[in-house]
Amino acid sequence: MDTCLIHNYSQRIENVLDRLLPPASEQPGRLHETMRYSVLGGGKRIRPRLVYATGDVLGIAPERLDAPACAVEFIHAYSLIHDDLPAMDDDALRRGQPTAHIAFGEATAILAGDALQALAFEVIATDASIGTDPAIRATLMATLAYACGSHGMVGGQALDMDSEGKRIGVQQLERLHNQKTGALLRACVMMAADSQPDLAVDERAALDLFARRIGLAFQVRDDVLDIESSTEKLGKTQGADIAHHKATYPALLGLAEAKALSERLYAEAMDAVSIFGDQAAPLREIAAEIVKRDH
Amino acid sequence: MDTCLIHNYSQRIENVLDRLLPPASEQPGRLHETMRYSVLGGGKRIRPRLVYATGDVLGIAPERLDAPACAVEFIHAYSLIHDDLPAMDDDALRRGQPTAHIAFGEATAILAGDALQALAFEVIATDASIGTDPAIRATLMATLAYACGSHGMVGGQALDMDSEGKRIGVQQLERLHNQKTGALLRACVMMAADSQPDLAVDERAALDLFARRIGLAFQVRDDVLDIESSTEKLGKTQGADIAHHKATYPALLGLAEAKALSERLYAEAMDAVSIFGDQAAPLREIAAEIVKRDH
Repeated sequence: MDTCLIHNYSQRIENVLDRLLPPASEQPGRLHETMRYSVLGGGKRIRPRLVYATGDVLGIAPERLDAPACAVEFIHAYSLIHDDLPAMDDDALRRGQPTAHIAFGEATAILAGDALQALAFEVIATDASIGTDPAIRATLMATLAYACGSHGMVGGQALDMDSEGKRIGVQQLERLHNQKTGALLRACVMMAADSQPDLAVDERAALDLFARRIGLAFQVRDDVLDIESSTEKLGKTQGADIAHHKATYPALLGLAEAKALSERLYAEAMDAVSIFGDQAAPLREIAAEIVKRDH
Repeated sequence: MDTCLIHNYSQRIENVLDRLLPPASEQPGRLHETMRYSVLGGGKRIRPRLVYATGDVLGIAPERLDAPACAVEFIHAYSLIHDDLPAMDDDALRRGQPTAHIAFGEATAILAGDALQALAFEVIATDASIGTDPAIRATLMATLAYACGSHGMVGGQALDMDSEGKRIGVQQLERLHNQKTGALLRACVMMAADSQPDLAVDERAALDLFARRIGLAFQVRDDVLDIESSTEKLGKTQGADIAHHKATYPALLGLAEAKALSERLYAEAMDAVSIFGDQAAPLREIAAEIVKRDH
């Protein structure tokens, strides 16, 4: 990708994740092995790439974003481990591989998730790559913690569970998804913004709006894919939402209108970052990938 | 306790925990209810009291320690929720009450634990009581995150699981406990130390040694109590360690030698804080409570 205007950062992400994860040779070995298995087992790395892409738009060197980029991926990986548990979605397959509790046992999977959450905060609190300004560190921490907690990702997961088998409206579904997937995607964009303390207020607001629209588009697309895509492409059990009687955008709006909604959200996101002109290309590219993806 | 030299802070702790926990009236209600049930359902509050006691020794106003004091209790509460899960210790009773997964279901219990961990970091990152110095915030975060992760509490839990049914030596048992319970108790003391950035190096080292000795003494006492105390007093199933074939100090050293070890650790902890003279009274008191407690 070096000849291309848009940096992909895929190799960088793998390298930094590897550096920031404890080696499996270090005690407790099985725990560290499970953490590494869950984080390094592939995935599209949309979240860390979103951090770096926002940094590109704002002229922040990628080195300075290594810690937040990897921290969000650690949070994402922990959430998948816990979501897959028998008491939650009870999924045996993730990215075409056995889920952590199938490969390492349930207790170790719970602990690996817990340790990855702590590691995400440790990396933000300590990694030298962030630089020497403790105010940036504290702000990054606030953004990430809020996105993870009961008002963010975990709260969205709880709302999702509460809604199973119930009739909920589009508004409640939007709230659920804004928390469940939207909050962490927003944190990716806003942590890059946090790393630029002299960012103009309107630019920060534009990024926030972009992040919110893309976050929701991501989930609408996910719902659509759960119906349209095959199990093979998804790497997880297709039709799982229907099997779990979950409310989805296609179920509430119909498939065609759900697709139209995702296009509308995409257009609003594009509109928001027009303030950055051509500089916004990296965010336009990743937004397109999120909305057009087929797995 | 107002007439006494040593502040107890019990009421302060309950008030601040209540303030920092989201109200159950706020969505997602069941998640917030589970978080509140798990944190506010009693407990000796040794960890927050240890934060305030260290602050008393160092002349730090209790207001400035409200966030770290409550953050450690949130971490402690989350670890209990996850430890009690069927895949872990499978305990139905905690502090004489149904454990979170019995009262609210397993999925909600997992999520409540996850949200409490995030809340602990959010409180450190954002609560105004800490003051305006972001360097203190960043240091508190580093201390807490390290204590929680795979090199701290969660790692100790994993070592504990790995050791079940195996023969392990005293050295490995000490490592396990230094991580499993010691790391978070140490963080209580060190977060108060972090809040006093101009603390002398030898005073900081003295507190660190005190914390390590007390942390281990706490666990040795726990092992002894598991044999000696009744289920009624403990509020959890007595003899659970033996039933789970866990390595314990009494099992490795004999009951009398385990008791003697806890007294030796206590004496070393007292020795460490002698540097503070009479000012160390609050730490002496809480150390005595830890080593002499009968439940």
